[in-house]
Amino acid sequence: MEPTWTNLPVAVKIVEVGPRDGLQNEQIQIPTAIKLRFIEQLADAGLSVIEATSFVSPHAIPQLSDASEVMQNIQRKAGVEYSALVPNLKGLERALAAGTRSIAVFTAASESFTRHNINASIAESLANFRPVIERARADGIAVRGYISTAFGCPYEGAIAPQQVLHVAHALIELGVEELSLGDTIGVATPRAVIDLLNLFLDDQSIPLEQIGVHFHDTRGTALANVLTALQMGVSIIDSSAGGLGGCPYAPGAAGNLATEDLIYLLQGLGLAATIDLAKVVAATSIIAPYLTHEPTSKYYRAAKAQP
Amino acid sequence: MEPTWTNLPVAVKIVEVGPRDGLQNEQIQIPTAIKLRFIEQLADAGLSVIEATSFVSPHAIPQLSDASEVMQNIQRKAGVEYSALVPNLKGLERALAAGTRSIAVFTAASESFTRHNINASIAESLANFRPVIERARADGIAVRGYISTAFGCPYEGAIAPQQVLHVAHALIELGVEELSLGDTIGVATPRAVIDLLNLFLDDQSIPLEQIGVHFHDTRGTALANVLTALQMGVSIIDSSAGGLGGCPYAPGAAGNLATEDLIYLLQGLGLAATIDLAKVVAATSIIAPYLTHEPTSKYYRAAKAQP
Repeated sequence: MEPTWTNLPVAVKIVEVGPRDGLQNEQIQIPTAIKLRFIEQLADAGLSVIEATSFVSPHAIPQLSDASEVMQNIQRKAGVEYSALVPNLKGLERALAAGTRSIAVFTAASESFTRHNINASIAESLANFRPVIERARADGIAVRGYISTAFGCPYEGAIAPQQVLHVAHALIELGVEELSLGDTIGVATPRAVIDLLNLFLDDQSIPLEQIGVHFHDTRGTALANVLTALQMGVSIIDSSAGGLGGCPYAPGAAGNLATEDLIYLLQGLGLAATIDLAKVVAATSIIAPYLTHEPTSKYYRAAKAQP
Repeated sequence: MEPTWTNLPVAVKIVEVGPRDGLQNEQIQIPTAIKLRFIEQLADAGLSVIEATSFVSPHAIPQLSDASEVMQNIQRKAGVEYSALVPNLKGLERALAAGTRSIAVFTAASESFTRHNINASIAESLANFRPVIERARADGIAVRGYISTAFGCPYEGAIAPQQVLHVAHALIELGVEELSLGDTIGVATPRAVIDLLNLFLDDQSIPLEQIGVHFHDTRGTALANVLTALQMGVSIIDSSAGGLGGCPYAPGAAGNLATEDLIYLLQGLGLAATIDLAKVVAATSIIAPYLTHEPTSKYYRAAKAQP
């Protein structure tokens, strides 16, 4: 199908990944109390799904070594989902002990990327997730599955859409309820978005309602890609307050799509009306003093530049 | 009409405004020889319309006080149009004497903006242009007309699309052959783009082939707006190498849409295939050392960050 304006969804689910994906990729240690203020401000702004932390090994990602403390101490707002990334059973145990009720697992469409990133093949990463997802679902925990490098890989270059669909099938078969297709290095343009989504639509085995998109703004195309995905009927979009996270594969370049920029676009389309954009800027402002660079969100910078 | 993929133009005309609109809004003095290298590198990259300078008063905009020297000394590449902004008859005389064969005039859709910017009403600015455009056309000079604040004004806020159409009619009546609808403060989102273009389409008096769009990326939406305009059938797009120009109304924020980001999007759509993106980055690199800030183009930053 072609993207059309009439396909725009009537409502959008924004998955705020700043506290996890964002802070994981900033080379700084943020005090736990500041993280909690950040998360609580994001919820106060109206964001209803917040990936709060990751229960990875504290040695691997010291930035998130306070995962349990964060998850246990959030002043929870009714109706808000506070999720966490979980790499394995040990991580799941820690997540459950901290009161986590929604988790995400992380793999990739590129063998080389998976090998570099988690020292396993894609098949091995999926096999590792099987008991994690089984245990989570037995406890009534929602499970999201990230497929990174869905549009391109820093080691392999272009990734065949079929490979993304293959990994998607495997994750759904394992019990994942929502997918997030990630443009890890920010190379996607609208044509690639159309081609990948059309493959999923033609395949028909995974409803569009289970498919989210996770764009990086490394080359400035994230919002054009979002608009295209919306015109294809996608209604789940990941973003990171302030654009937190940068791009590990191009230091100094932008990474995650900024939540402020996304919401400004969406509100212009009549979507995301319940979110208070000024309060998202305020959330980013809590973290900004700790960063080694200015937040990459263009809306944030414009808001801060106003007299 | 609704924007659709099938409306995408088969070819796009990019109007490179970095040497004029970009440098005019950077608070620096660039050596003339560097400007010439910049312009020649842009032409070498494949850009075929380059707004090279402005024949405004050197007192008003000292950054472009070398307009005659620039225009006279460009090593011209066959098939490339080197244009200049011209504010009045005196400026036109200087432009003609320097060998300019393509000019642009500049007004706005907002009365307050025109008053602040050129100390005249819109009607007065149009009256001033009448002899300029008559003289230019008598000499066989192509004339472009900028309509700034077409989506919003720093003093008035929202601008009625009818007001933009009104100014457009006046410019066309004066003999302008191409319009550029400018989002001077970068507030536009796709819905506003659709509404404004639909007004022009419904009006039917100005063919779409004469209408260009000039977006600022102040809030990150420029490329989503470009995609929408393309889906409405627009085929003329302004951009500035590196995103040069900033935003005078929000110091520190982004201004002009970056040529690199635009071309990366277009090439993903199968357009602008004759442009060498690496050479555009090289053009921006000529100016970058003179700026007081890093160029705002995300593609440029990603290209520079590559190992």
